Amino acid sequence: MFYHVKELQYRAVPERPDPVFAKKLQEILGGQFGEISVAMQYLFQGWGARGEGKYVDLLMDTGTEELAHVEMLATMIARLLDNAPEVDLDEAVDNPVVAAILGGTNPQHAIVSGLGAMPSDSVGNRWTADYIIASGNLLADFRANLNAESQGRLQAVRLYEETNDRGVKDMLSWLIARDTMHQNQWIAAIHELEEKQGVVVPATFPRELQKEEVAYTLFNYSAGNDSAKGRWAHGPAPDGCGVFNYVEHPQPYGGKPVLNPAPLWVHDTPLDLLNMKHRPDPDLK
Amino acid sequence: MFYHVKELQYRAVPERPDPVFAKKLQEILGGQFGEISVAMQYLFQGWGARGEGKYVDLLMDTGTEELAHVEMLATMIARLLDNAPEVDLDEAVDNPVVAAILGGTNPQHAIVSGLGAMPSDSVGNRWTADYIIASGNLLADFRANLNAESQGRLQAVRLYEETNDRGVKDMLSWLIARDTMHQNQWIAAIHELEEKQGVVVPATFPRELQKEEVAYTLFNYSAGNDSAKGRWAHGPAPDGCGVFNYVEHPQPYGGKPVLNPAPLWVHDTPLDLLNMKHRPDPDLK
Amino acid sequence: MFYHVKELQYRAVPERPDPVFAKKLQEILGGQFGEISVAMQYLFQGWGARGEGKYVDLLMDTGTEELAHVEMLATMIARLLDNAPEVDLDEAVDNPVVAAILGGTNPQHAIVSGLGAMPSDSVGNRWTADYIIASGNLLADFRANLNAESQGRLQAVRLYEETNDRGVKDMLSWLIARDTMHQNQWIAAIHELEEKQGVVVPATFPRELQKEEVAYTLFNYSAGNDSAKGRWAHGPAPDGCGVFNYVEHPQPYGGKPVLNPAPLWVHDTPLDLLNMKHRPDPDLK
Amino acid sequence: MFYHVKELQYRAVPERPDPVFAKKLQEILGGQFGEISVAMQYLFQGWGARGEGKYVDLLMDTGTEELAHVEMLATMIARLLDNAPEVDLDEAVDNPVVAAILGGTNPQHAIVSGLGAMPSDSVGNRWTADYIIASGNLLADFRANLNAESQGRLQAVRLYEETNDRGVKDMLSWLIARDTMHQNQWIAAIHELEEKQGVVVPATFPRELQKEEVAYTLFNYSAGNDSAKGRWAHGPAPDGCGVFNYVEHPQPYGGKPVLNPAPLWVHDTPLDLLNMKHRPDPDLK
Amino acid sequence: MFYHVKELQYRAVPERPDPVFAKKLQEILGGQFGEISVAMQYLFQGWGARGEGKYVDLLMDTGTEELAHVEMLATMIARLLDNAPEVDLDEAVDNPVVAAILGGTNPQHAIVSGLGAMPSDSVGNRWTADYIIASGNLLADFRANLNAESQGRLQAVRLYEETNDRGVKDMLSWLIARDTMHQNQWIAAIHELEEKQGVVVPATFPRELQKEEVAYTLFNYSAGNDSAKGRWAHGPAPDGCGVFNYVEHPQPYGGKPVLNPAPLWVHDTPLDLLNMKHRPDPDLK
Amino acid sequence: MFYHVKELQYRAVPERPDPVFAKKLQEILGGQFGEISVAMQYLFQGWGARGEGKYVDLLMDTGTEELAHVEMLATMIARLLDNAPEVDLDEAVDNPVVAAILGGTNPQHAIVSGLGAMPSDSVGNRWTADYIIASGNLLADFRANLNAESQGRLQAVRLYEETNDRGVKDMLSWLIARDTMHQNQWIAAIHELEEKQGVVVPATFPRELQKEEVAYTLFNYSAGNDSAKGRWAHGPAPDGCGVFNYVEHPQPYGGKPVLNPAPLWVHDTPLDLLNMKHRPDPDLK
Repeated sequence: MFYHVKELQYRAVPERPDPVFAKKLQEILGGQFGEISVAMQYLFQGWGARGEGKYVDLLMDTGTEELAHVEMLATMIARLLDNAPEVDLDEAVDNPVVAAILGGTNPQHAIVSGLGAMPSDSVGNRWTADYIIASGNLLADFRANLNAESQGRLQAVRLYEETNDRGVKDMLSWLIARDTMHQNQWIAAIHELEEKQGVVVPATFPRELQKEEVAYTLFNYSAGNDSAKGRWAHGPAPDGCGVFNYVEHPQPYGGKPVLNPAPLWVHDTPLDLLNMKHRPDPDLK
Repeated sequence: MFYHVKELQYRAVPERPDPVFAKKLQEILGGQFGEISVAMQYLFQGWGARGEGKYVDLLMDTGTEELAHVEMLATMIARLLDNAPEVDLDEAVDNPVVAAILGGTNPQHAIVSGLGAMPSDSVGNRWTADYIIASGNLLADFRANLNAESQGRLQAVRLYEETNDRGVKDMLSWLIARDTMHQNQWIAAIHELEEKQGVVVPATFPRELQKEEVAYTLFNYSAGNDSAKGRWAHGPAPDGCGVFNYVEHPQPYGGKPVLNPAPLWVHDTPLDLLNMKHRPDPDLK
Repeated sequence: MFYHVKELQYRAVPERPDPVFAKKLQEILGGQFGEISVAMQYLFQGWGARGEGKYVDLLMDTGTEELAHVEMLATMIARLLDNAPEVDLDEAVDNPVVAAILGGTNPQHAIVSGLGAMPSDSVGNRWTADYIIASGNLLADFRANLNAESQGRLQAVRLYEETNDRGVKDMLSWLIARDTMHQNQWIAAIHELEEKQGVVVPATFPRELQKEEVAYTLFNYSAGNDSAKGRWAHGPAPDGCGVFNYVEHPQPYGGKPVLNPAPLWVHDTPLDLLNMKHRPDPDLK
Repeated sequence: MFYHVKELQYRAVPERPDPVFAKKLQEILGGQFGEISVAMQYLFQGWGARGEGKYVDLLMDTGTEELAHVEMLATMIARLLDNAPEVDLDEAVDNPVVAAILGGTNPQHAIVSGLGAMPSDSVGNRWTADYIIASGNLLADFRANLNAESQGRLQAVRLYEETNDRGVKDMLSWLIARDTMHQNQWIAAIHELEEKQGVVVPATFPRELQKEEVAYTLFNYSAGNDSAKGRWAHGPAPDGCGVFNYVEHPQPYGGKPVLNPAPLWVHDTPLDLLNMKHRPDPDLK
Repeated sequence: MFYHVKELQYRAVPERPDPVFAKKLQEILGGQFGEISVAMQYLFQGWGARGEGKYVDLLMDTGTEELAHVEMLATMIARLLDNAPEVDLDEAVDNPVVAAILGGTNPQHAIVSGLGAMPSDSVGNRWTADYIIASGNLLADFRANLNAESQGRLQAVRLYEETNDRGVKDMLSWLIARDTMHQNQWIAAIHELEEKQGVVVPATFPRELQKEEVAYTLFNYSAGNDSAKGRWAHGPAPDGCGVFNYVEHPQPYGGKPVLNPAPLWVHDTPLDLLNMKHRPDPDLK
Repeated sequence: MFYHVKELQYRAVPERPDPVFAKKLQEILGGQFGEISVAMQYLFQGWGARGEGKYVDLLMDTGTEELAHVEMLATMIARLLDNAPEVDLDEAVDNPVVAAILGGTNPQHAIVSGLGAMPSDSVGNRWTADYIIASGNLLADFRANLNAESQGRLQAVRLYEETNDRGVKDMLSWLIARDTMHQNQWIAAIHELEEKQGVVVPATFPRELQKEEVAYTLFNYSAGNDSAKGRWAHGPAPDGCGVFNYVEHPQPYGGKPVLNPAPLWVHDTPLDLLNMKHRPDPDLK
């Protein structure tokens, strides 16, 4: 259960309105790696974790914090939209700023949300749960979280570079610092789990059931062998269970697939039109 | 540029048709962490990487391999759909298998694709590029890749557990082994990049520009302090630049936000109806 | 800013596992009118409201409560998935329950979420912000909210009818009661706003700028005139500004539109192929 | 069954081309509350209504009219795109209007639709049936309709404010007037149904089956008690069946949820890694 | 502008309810090639056609008819859902039909639409305007229409094969016949346009501006040369402007692309980490 | 299985950066008829074709080539984004080009992809498998392919007209020529199949099972009879099995549908509120 306090986690006050930047800032509110994504991702991971304990508590702590970040960004975007002008094409004749505003703003900020933030990214795609990840396996999910915080901090940094507004930069410097913490925290949690169960997810699948002979092989499917120079092409693998090897000219292990004709009721292309040769698929025997 | 050979990377021949499993297997073909996702993700990362070298080559090698996995799964699904019966509700009276097939199969496998694989997941959502990640920053993206291979192997393992068909298990044992390799390879590549640039993405943003005082702090927003017991709440942070600390009762740093009224042309709720108090936002002065 | 407590707002304990019902229950978690929708809708309305006061406080109260409902449903769904069997088609031969489970469960509950709830509806569509509404005009938005609570209670009631599990019914009886409150509360808030500003949204647009002669007219575009018997076809309109009238045989007010040819660079169908008659559009003068 | 006449319901002739406004106008054609949405919503409600009579006739009348509005907007947008120039970045050096057009137009209007309207909103999201509502319960659905006409009129009014073109304003004044009618008509229909069955949807669910003790309670989950001042916090509820009450410090009714471990075949995080405490969930007994 | 009559274009009365088939039949109502798609596609093509005349009239005739097909299918689906039972898992123990219904029905038909049709396909994906095509070039669009009627008839035929209900088959035999007409009509219209302007779209682009030397070449990118046996690999091309030729071992025409480093503010992977070789791209000079 | 070579199929080098055109060019990379669509469409058709032979080989040849086109466009877009400036609203005061760039560029090119191409269209919609078609019936699918190449060439030509950059035009002239080949090749393949099986898809459905009396009828549902002048309204139909006829005033063949009331547990609007007349549906008896 949740409680809300009216105060923001950190202040969200721009120096001046800037509807063009408001559009861009939507990316880290409602984009693939925006704050809605991390809030929902951590909460769903927490609710789905089959156990109680410090990992689940960490997920709920962080997911709840991310809700506060959604709130800060929604507030900041509304303020960047303050006093947005009603501009039209006629006025652009004399005024490049009008031209920029005509083109660089999100028309839905005026028409749809009435100068409020939208649950969308910087080009207007609405947020979707396609973005989030919760598998019930914490090592897998913490890797998803480390990625999310890496992409998120990268985007916040790029936005920091794209504005001169000190108020916006101030708020972004908060979010960037929190992403530093969150990257560090997921790394720490990942290390702990990897030490206990190894680095390959899931750890509980018996290794002998996988095709071991290709479990440490780099196949060179792209002409040129620069990739052979990497650490991933020779030496012991990080999981400690195998040695990397490199195959310069990989050959197919399977035969040419030939599918059986479909039953008549499906009305696929009739067999004779396909000039099938009835060559048996070599894998079929 | 690409060339195709007719042979499969590995054989994809089930022991017997099973349209119910065909529906499930769609998950790792066209789902969030299916083979389409990793193929497109690695190729887009490779095409967008601003530089040449072993990392890019590795991306192209692996992305090209994943196209072969898409092909193997599409072939396997078509074969699991072989001889799919035309069943209807009447026949289910006497036959639970018919009942299961009526319910457990994907109707689009008959109606839409004519007993071929669909570019969809196990519940029928069409594949979307919402799933993929390519940022231009390789450390961020390799973390996305490690997550993708972790989620992907987890899903392949779960599917392995849900079938008794030795042909399907054989093919899955190949894919599971390749995911072992790919997890190992991205870990190796991540370690190399982290050694050179540190663990926090992006490494090139000046640390002093972030709000350093909260860059190593765990805020306890979720009642109960189990999370304080984790490695992420005390001791040096993995990035070597700070020391974790724990705040049991976090307080807001910002004030209560009060937004300005909207200009009249937006026709938001008029000010007097909102019984605004004109209390200045404490952050505004 | 938010705080989380570990306890649920109300208990979420089924009598027994039921993975088929778990799939259905997803509708009111992650469907169009599920709890994610109302939580996000109320919070975004609150964050975007340009003013402070009781309406905004009410939005934040209710939005925060809906987050607790998401949590209860996520917990309930995970428990309904407890002990989900690994079943396959062979076993369905002898067992209709296996057949039902094969068909009636969501395969992603096993493959993707590891027996946790998904941010999806009952057929597996991922939640999308397409579902939510926040316009900056509170009367408009409270009508959206009243609709959401009406659809939501209707769906919860239908689900109540579809299960015999007393634990599930107990939790649903809580959610249904809360929807009763929320319908009542939005009605009360709507009445208050309507009394002050009238019933037509937005109230601030000068009536004389609309085409008044058709502002109270029911056009009978569908053969048969049953609709003429309704209160909406005669008598004073609810807004107190006009009188309803009924037009049995509505005629077009505009002419036949004829579009100009496209410039050549667009490569639309060339003019001569369209056998255009150059009859002027009657509306053009 | 439908018939089409070539004439428009009302004229759709702008004074002059304006490709920037054409992009914006898409919102009320193909956006969440555009004319496609209301047309489809009313028709699906009509087709799904289990009964014949004046309500169904009203739905078909209005749904059929909305198709005419789709047509008017498609015509207007095509005309606003007339003579759209082929502009490129070089020309923007000297000409802010070119700059505005480069930025403020929808590139798909040239590349995809050949200067025709798109079935999309003002930022280019394609229309989706996620937007529409048809539940089989007319009171619920008429509330959806009242909301749709409220949001739709609000958006049309905002667009009216954003243009100086008298032809466009003329057409919008028609649509705004029709939205006035449609708000009034749904209000009239809602009142009629509410008088017969009460205000809470669905009316047919036995009240005693809901958790009555929280059916009229406002829980204050958001710090600050401004919401207590509203009509929704005290006095008789609009449904006439209860009295509102306010709980300033709401406590959880449920216990801390602890989920059971997953079966091994799901390969969630193993139990010992979760440092579970096996504290029984208080709600479980 | 449109008028509606209450009678259906053709009767839509099943012999008996069948909620499992109701789910399948959704495919041709709200799927990629369902009746919503063709209705919207033809109407948008008609509204966007820049000219008046027989082609536009044909589009409006056919688009208006497809609206009647949407109505017939919506009616049929509602009737197939009549008397849908409230079934639960317990009852499936003894009854395979219950099992089939549990699994084979769309849960949203009960929970969301109240036994009405949904604007969705057979697996529950909501209809989206991603499916439709309107380019302003009629030859291109008539090819889209011929495809739509081909896919649509194919799906209707497959559904015809999947039911024994004579009422359903009767209605499908109507839709299948109409698709026969529509395939024939678009073929006739295509021939007419092709005779006037040639077969390559768009006809208005000067041929000499394309890279003529590869405008009739089949590149063999897939090992094996079965494709060389086709009519498309030799002889005059259908457009009468060139002769097909076959290249068995196609070589790249371009060089290896090497992208420039990104500016610092983008924070992509730093150059030195990419071990770039600064080999100039051969295409760059 | 696939192999990749580093060289591009054709060069992709612009004369100069142009981030505004980079946004537009996304349409033919990741739009509805972009190269991702044709690559995936042809490959899925090939993998699903139940037979081996020249048609399948042709699909694999062409699908594999389209992957090379994705690569060329991704490279070109990255180069058009080279040296993208960090511009803000202040700078637009003096500089219309800055204004154009502010408005006319895709903000995700900077924030999300780090100056790489996105798997999206020109307005930012992510690519979705909703766009692709693979039915198992090759005649149907080759018509889809002919449409895709027609729409694709049309869009490439429009983009050719919208730029003055000779490098971009050079690359587009390659793609336009390849689309010429691909239109010709699908036409040739279609003719071959049509000669063998006739023009109506699917050919394998017994004609006598369709409602023959309306299989060659043009119904005039749109007032005005220009459509009667077309070849599709008289004379023998292209399939050689019927003669076109024209019905000027089409009447409904079915009766007014009246749906039965819903069972109580669905909680639709109660019967008495619907003032149903219990007039039997004329089609029901």
